[in-house]
Amino acid sequence: MQKTTFAGKQEQAEQAIAKIRENGFIPAELVEGEVTWFYDNLGIDNQYFAMESVSTICDHIISLYGAKILAYTKHSDSLEIDLEHATSNGAVFIHSSPPGASDPDSGAKPRYESVIDEKYIDKSTTSSAWRLETYRSKGNVSSSLPQRLRCYFLSKCNFVQPVPSPDSPEYSDIRRVSDAGFLSKASSNTLEIYQDVMSEALSRTGPVIEVFQVEGTREHRIVIGYRMGSTHGFFSALSSLYHYYSLFSSRKYVEHFSNDVTIVSLYLNPLPGSKAPPIEHSIHQVTREASLVYCLPDNPFFKAEATESAYAVQEAAYAYVGWLFAQHFCNRLGQAYQALRNVLDETNLQQASILNDIKLRFREETFTRQSIQETLQSYPELVRLLYVHFAAIHYPKGGDDDDLIPTLSYQRLVKEEILTDEQMYDRIRKTTVNQHEFQVLEALLLFNKAVLKCNFYTPTKVALSFRLDAKFLPEAEYPVRPFGIFFVVGSDFRGFHVRFKDVARGGIRVVRSRNRELYSVNQRGLFDEVYNLALTQQKKNKDLPEGGSKGAILPSLDANPRLCFEKFCDSLIDLLLEGQSPGVKEKIVDLVGKEEILFLGPDEGTADCMDWAAGHARERGAPWWKSFTTGKTAATLGGIPHDVWGMTSLSVRQYTTGIMRKLGLKEEEVTKVQTGGPDGDLGSNEILLSTDKTVAIIDGSGVIHDPQGLDREELTRLARGRKMISDFDISRLSKGGYRVLVEENDVKLPSGEIIPDGVQFRNQAHLLFKADLFVPCGGRPESINISNVNRLFDAEGKPHFKYVVEGANLFVTKQARTELERRGVILYPDASANKGGVTSSSLEVLCGLSLSDEEYQELMVFKDGKPSKFYLGYVRDVQNIIAQNARKEFEAIWRESQATSLPRSLISSQLSDALNSLSEELEGTNLFQNVTIRNAVLSHVFPGVLQRKIGLEAAIERIPEAYAKSAFAAWLAADFVYKNGPQASHVSFYQHLTNLSASAPTS
Amino acid sequence: MQKTTFAGKQEQAEQAIAKIRENGFIPAELVEGEVTWFYDNLGIDNQYFAMESVSTICDHIISLYGAKILAYTKHSDSLEIDLEHATSNGAVFIHSSPPGASDPDSGAKPRYESVIDEKYIDKSTTSSAWRLETYRSKGNVSSSLPQRLRCYFLSKCNFVQPVPSPDSPEYSDIRRVSDAGFLSKASSNTLEIYQDVMSEALSRTGPVIEVFQVEGTREHRIVIGYRMGSTHGFFSALSSLYHYYSLFSSRKYVEHFSNDVTIVSLYLNPLPGSKAPPIEHSIHQVTREASLVYCLPDNPFFKAEATESAYAVQEAAYAYVGWLFAQHFCNRLGQAYQALRNVLDETNLQQASILNDIKLRFREETFTRQSIQETLQSYPELVRLLYVHFAAIHYPKGGDDDDLIPTLSYQRLVKEEILTDEQMYDRIRKTTVNQHEFQVLEALLLFNKAVLKCNFYTPTKVALSFRLDAKFLPEAEYPVRPFGIFFVVGSDFRGFHVRFKDVARGGIRVVRSRNRELYSVNQRGLFDEVYNLALTQQKKNKDLPEGGSKGAILPSLDANPRLCFEKFCDSLIDLLLEGQSPGVKEKIVDLVGKEEILFLGPDEGTADCMDWAAGHARERGAPWWKSFTTGKTAATLGGIPHDVWGMTSLSVRQYTTGIMRKLGLKEEEVTKVQTGGPDGDLGSNEILLSTDKTVAIIDGSGVIHDPQGLDREELTRLARGRKMISDFDISRLSKGGYRVLVEENDVKLPSGEIIPDGVQFRNQAHLLFKADLFVPCGGRPESINISNVNRLFDAEGKPHFKYVVEGANLFVTKQARTELERRGVILYPDASANKGGVTSSSLEVLCGLSLSDEEYQELMVFKDGKPSKFYLGYVRDVQNIIAQNARKEFEAIWRESQATSLPRSLISSQLSDALNSLSEELEGTNLFQNVTIRNAVLSHVFPGVLQRKIGLEAAIERIPEAYAKSAFAAWLAADFVYKNGPQASHVSFYQHLTNLSASAPTS
Repeated sequence: MQKTTFAGKQEQAEQAIAKIRENGFIPAELVEGEVTWFYDNLGIDNQYFAMESVSTICDHIISLYGAKILAYTKHSDSLEIDLEHATSNGAVFIHSSPPGASDPDSGAKPRYESVIDEKYIDKSTTSSAWRLETYRSKGNVSSSLPQRLRCYFLSKCNFVQPVPSPDSPEYSDIRRVSDAGFLSKASSNTLEIYQDVMSEALSRTGPVIEVFQVEGTREHRIVIGYRMGSTHGFFSALSSLYHYYSLFSSRKYVEHFSNDVTIVSLYLNPLPGSKAPPIEHSIHQVTREASLVYCLPDNPFFKAEATESAYAVQEAAYAYVGWLFAQHFCNRLGQAYQALRNVLDETNLQQASILNDIKLRFREETFTRQSIQETLQSYPELVRLLYVHFAAIHYPKGGDDDDLIPTLSYQRLVKEEILTDEQMYDRIRKTTVNQHEFQVLEALLLFNKAVLKCNFYTPTKVALSFRLDAKFLPEAEYPVRPFGIFFVVGSDFRGFHVRFKDVARGGIRVVRSRNRELYSVNQRGLFDEVYNLALTQQKKNKDLPEGGSKGAILPSLDANPRLCFEKFCDSLIDLLLEGQSPGVKEKIVDLVGKEEILFLGPDEGTADCMDWAAGHARERGAPWWKSFTTGKTAATLGGIPHDVWGMTSLSVRQYTTGIMRKLGLKEEEVTKVQTGGPDGDLGSNEILLSTDKTVAIIDGSGVIHDPQGLDREELTRLARGRKMISDFDISRLSKGGYRVLVEENDVKLPSGEIIPDGVQFRNQAHLLFKADLFVPCGGRPESINISNVNRLFDAEGKPHFKYVVEGANLFVTKQARTELERRGVILYPDASANKGGVTSSSLEVLCGLSLSDEEYQELMVFKDGKPSKFYLGYVRDVQNIIAQNARKEFEAIWRESQATSLPRSLISSQLSDALNSLSEELEGTNLFQNVTIRNAVLSHVFPGVLQRKIGLEAAIERIPEAYAKSAFAAWLAADFVYKNGPQASHVSFYQHLTNLSASAPTS
Repeated sequence: MQKTTFAGKQEQAEQAIAKIRENGFIPAELVEGEVTWFYDNLGIDNQYFAMESVSTICDHIISLYGAKILAYTKHSDSLEIDLEHATSNGAVFIHSSPPGASDPDSGAKPRYESVIDEKYIDKSTTSSAWRLETYRSKGNVSSSLPQRLRCYFLSKCNFVQPVPSPDSPEYSDIRRVSDAGFLSKASSNTLEIYQDVMSEALSRTGPVIEVFQVEGTREHRIVIGYRMGSTHGFFSALSSLYHYYSLFSSRKYVEHFSNDVTIVSLYLNPLPGSKAPPIEHSIHQVTREASLVYCLPDNPFFKAEATESAYAVQEAAYAYVGWLFAQHFCNRLGQAYQALRNVLDETNLQQASILNDIKLRFREETFTRQSIQETLQSYPELVRLLYVHFAAIHYPKGGDDDDLIPTLSYQRLVKEEILTDEQMYDRIRKTTVNQHEFQVLEALLLFNKAVLKCNFYTPTKVALSFRLDAKFLPEAEYPVRPFGIFFVVGSDFRGFHVRFKDVARGGIRVVRSRNRELYSVNQRGLFDEVYNLALTQQKKNKDLPEGGSKGAILPSLDANPRLCFEKFCDSLIDLLLEGQSPGVKEKIVDLVGKEEILFLGPDEGTADCMDWAAGHARERGAPWWKSFTTGKTAATLGGIPHDVWGMTSLSVRQYTTGIMRKLGLKEEEVTKVQTGGPDGDLGSNEILLSTDKTVAIIDGSGVIHDPQGLDREELTRLARGRKMISDFDISRLSKGGYRVLVEENDVKLPSGEIIPDGVQFRNQAHLLFKADLFVPCGGRPESINISNVNRLFDAEGKPHFKYVVEGANLFVTKQARTELERRGVILYPDASANKGGVTSSSLEVLCGLSLSDEEYQELMVFKDGKPSKFYLGYVRDVQNIIAQNARKEFEAIWRESQATSLPRSLISSQLSDALNSLSEELEGTNLFQNVTIRNAVLSHVFPGVLQRKIGLEAAIERIPEAYAKSAFAAWLAADFVYKNGPQASHVSFYQHLTNLSASAPTS
């Protein structure tokens, strides 16, 4: 396209000359020279003059003059202009660059641009954004100096008002979301290009990159569109990228739009007199690697000047990932430890302590972030070989580019010979000078062997994600080997997802760090934490089809956690969907060999992200989007919220009523104490489902007590309204009743006793009251522990509570539990009592897997805010299944405790161990192929309405086979173990199966 | 019958008068008085005068005169004659008894009669026997003295020659077996009576008792017949018996016969002026209790004079049994120990030692035979109550006597009130003054509650036997509770039989004691020993239908062990056969409630009694006589001798060839060392079955070695001839070969080495030789133990033998076994390798159970010395079953050791534990009712020829159900565990069963 003609350019120059003259800072005879120099030789596009006012232009010329005379007084043989000039609504940076570098401008990652990133671009939001223009002077400063000037103009955006709302169609219309100035001056061609870059960017989370060749020149224009703020330091990272391929930019623009889109466009030319390959290659290269840069903008391994030892972008990205990997896994305890371990035996204490000393010494000071980085930087050729070794496996073959123009790292690929594992191992051993460096680099080799698939070469990624084979984990440290590990690396976060069975479910948590030290602590223990939580979950899901899994995201200190979560999910999905991420043709290399699906749940810091994740999976066309997450909002996504239907409380109920039934107690006379108030899920549902005499409730707002039992009607009102007891109408308290709120002090009780401090009272209240039954429905973890359990017994040693059913998780510690049972309290642990929630989530998943999209939309999503008959039927079935499972387990535990009089918590974990090992056995056999047994079993797994709707056979067809097998094994094992106890014999298993197949509904 | 008229009595008297006068020791004027007094007033029967010569009669009269004048010089107011006069072929005892005793003769158990027992009757054998006549004088000594004389005449028997042989008909004809003198004088009536007493006695082992009333008087004649020497002190015990019922005897005769029968006949009258019940009662009583006296002749609890506190015979017998029971079981560690045990915990050592001290103190000095006896004698009324308590349960009700005349102890029975267990317990607690006595009497109460059936009231018993319920055993001492215990008490022995399963098999051993001290040691440990041996056997019979059992007999110091064994078996059979012991009408009380059968085997000191036991069971009409014992002679009783068919060696072979097959070794090149020579069962069969290069054999006669392998032909010759290697033709030794016999000293070996002492060399030889394979087929137990196992390794620690298969039992100790395996020797323990023998015995039993008598006689017993086709077929099947079982176990152990690389002996015991617990499970379920599975399994249990002969269904019908169930469970468990290893899963059990029933031969 030809340059925009600009009519009033010339007489605008005269105005400028006049204005400068009359304020007299520049000697008169120099004024005209300065103005024309500014207008013609700085290569400033007319667009600039068209947009700026004369007075601003004058300010720029004058301050430039000031910078000139300053430079002059340094008497260096090169005139060095260095202008930094910032005002409240704009900034100008003009500087020259010294001679001798191989190309006109570089120096350390350009300081000015990273300052511009830090202060302007990274801080731009829709409410205050800064647009940027930067030009490079064509001619020299003056005839005697071979100097170029580079000038940056920043100005505040004011967007077209009103800003359209995200769900209106104008939201993606460029004319309604851009800066007024830009709109009035932009050519229609620019607007056209920006428009479809924008709409593309809005349809996905990653960057959009377009390339155009400028008519009649060899100049190329790259336009990149992405979400505002989804990365940082991208602008200066781009400069390093194209510098690396020895290109320079004549003009660059950064535009922001009020719909959270940022568009960057670069005009690139080959550096004169460089031996680089033809520009098409470099341009092609830049576009391919821009996404890597997008993902890892400030990558310490990527230096812009292309010395021989410098890493290419992909190698730098690889080195970065290796760096992180090594921080977590560089085999921390190493062979030396293993070898030593076999010599010393761990039984006798003196040697065990030697072992322990060695362990601690190794761990602490060996592998700091810094020392790993130094090692990787001091063996560039090894890292390069390791990258080649990595790429040899994961570089997507086939997939023909339109024309096969090899990339630099590609030709590096063919230049570096590809080594086998052993050769690689030997090469590392020979080259590294000490054990420490050897282990760092060996970690990278382990990494290469552990990666089964990754989105490293997917251009549309927003973060790097790797599916790892857990075999690399040292058994000494991780006795139970996980089924699969996902490792995700983003610009400002890292994350793990670990699962112990192919079909597994677990929460995703975001780990926040208050300060740098705590970040180091969280970083060091990140993987161990995910591993242990996943393992705990594994034990807990014993009679569910899904095993345990867990994900954790560690954002860096000033990252936006929500955004980290979104990138985390998006890059996971990259690996779960078979090669059709939009806008990508070739498939990634997949060594897993079969389809994988993940089931994510809400956890610390992600409770409100589940809808988004499910929705996003749908947008990406994931067939399993419906079951991708649980805890989705019911109305829009057909989720089954635990608190609305009291799922967890239903299983708790089976234990409380079970106890009453066994001991022949009438519920209306049973006195109960409850922690967790009517505002909570468990608290409110416990109130609504029970008819007992609740004598005390303890919640976040205080304590309420009524020896005659709290007024039921009032409690129901609070429970329905989800209010705390601070809302309780105290006129309904009987004479001996009282309420103490946390903010009250010196409260006088009916007994005359003075409560000095409400908070104190509330924290200890659960240790003061006596009742038949205690159901903790909330409260801090470990509220009953080894050091205060004694206060639950009165002077003669009689317990305050005869029966305890643990609703809340971890309210009672294991030691306290043992102590309570030892002294005669009938107690059911949380692992058994509050399983309603996980069961409900599991069936929410099952529903998503069994229905097609239309059926799901029609049956599960609310029609104008009301649930369908199917939805209500499904919920009712879920509730029945929860009640039955809880009852079966309750009966089993009760029966076993009568027979063996072991403590119930011990029985509960014996049952779960027997159950887990049996269901593992069942998964390992082909019993599943036996149609009669399979159907007999799965007819109990699928909720009735689902079977009536689509039929059992169809349901089994639709769900993934791995899931069906797990469901089959889990149910059968549970059914058997709960009926026959943990020591059931082989023979009784045989009979159990025969009459199961005998009574199977003939298909 | 009228008295025998004796013509020449009168003139014989004159001859006596003349002879005495002419030798002048008696003043002439007194001679005639002495002779007539002797002839008429001593109540000597004419039969005596008819048999004795005049000169002997004179000797008797003169020596009587001498005794008279001696008595005279004592000037006591009663003339006391005391004549003991013994010659080489006769003896006379004449004495008077002092006044004032309530009846004419008693005093302490009559001294004279027990002297007569000790010196004459107990020592009578068919080669030299003493017959006895004893008379009681009718009138007084002289007019002035109220004295009676009692005279005993003993004379040597000379039997009618020739003595007929035991299997000829004359053997039971009285005219051919009696003493000549007796025959010529006995009346035909006497002969008739004695004849059918004799034939009756010959047909059973117990005593035969007949009663006759003497015509025209109230005198009763009792005739008792029994086996000569089958008891001792019976004659004097009988006197105490009838004295007890206040009867006196006018005449008594003891006759011996050359067919090992002794007949006693007593003429009994009521004592004048006693308040005893009418004589019929007493006589009836005497006949019933004679058998108890026969069983327990010298019973310290039975005193003849009937004071109020004296025991009746039955009570005395009961007290005697209680005495023995208390010696073994008086709950030795007691409640105090139990109570204390729960307070102290056994883990910390200081308290464990307190526990141990208490244990030892209790055991040693508390319950000596003597102190138990004193306790029982000091609480007669308690013992009486306990007896009543016992009789209340076991006195056979119903069974109408011809006319209901109650016995004394019977009326005692009704007089003493019968107490319940608690009342009895309290009564004991109140009456005993200290803990020690309380426990002795409590032991008797435990005994009463433990007896399920007994032959206490069976008149034909030869010993007392009790079937005990093992519940009385304290768990602390006997952790595994036996299924059943038999307790047998005889006149000169006691014995136990313990079994751990209803269907159990085990050996019977006779425990000999060299001297009194060792008798006490053996007596103290008798039960513990039987218990432990039975338990060991239980573990060994793991894949056989029969559990473990064991019997032990402890004869007293000078008893005849064989006779003890016979009584032991006979009284066991009393309890196994439902109430038709010959000559007995009413059935014994049976609290077991179902039929029991025992399977006895040969053991220390009973190997040659197995035929007799089986034969005897047949004579008593036991339907299971064929399977009562194993190790029967083949020819006459169809036994399957292990050594003829090399049963044990067959299983050993499967392990040796198994090793060769697995390691691909050619047998002809494998070098072998063997202990146990060609004269032994294992030794000879190992030679005949193998083709390897046997380089050394060590046996009772010495050592033979040939580095080139001993000449096969010669070995075969020795093996067939069952000769030791002392018979080896040494010309067939190669140059480097040699032989050292035990009696040789200073033998020079080809290597030049001198062997100083043959015995020494032989004992250590198995530690000197090197070979691929070592098969111990004999030798002392524990020949390889912890302290010499190191000598089986050469200087570099390489083992002398690469493979060891243990043929002989206990040749290698457990510690040595572990050590050998730890250092790389492939070793198979005896518990696995030499099972051929027990399997063969088990199938010998099965055969006996499945065939009827005729079939058994026709198919298994040899026709004129040759086995039938069926017998040979059966033996072949047994051999195949042995080979298969051994191979299955071998494969299982080999497979497991490859998989787990645990030592083989450990695998072997893991397999057996898994196998035992599975087969116990199987016995507890009703899987047996599933006909298809049952037949599928049992078709592998019954040898083929048996199935073809009588058909599977019939075979199952015929064997006892308990046995069938055990066989079913044992086979199925073995088949499953050997195929799937000790940790097999529930599911694989299910599949194992389904394809078992799928492949079952459809009946």
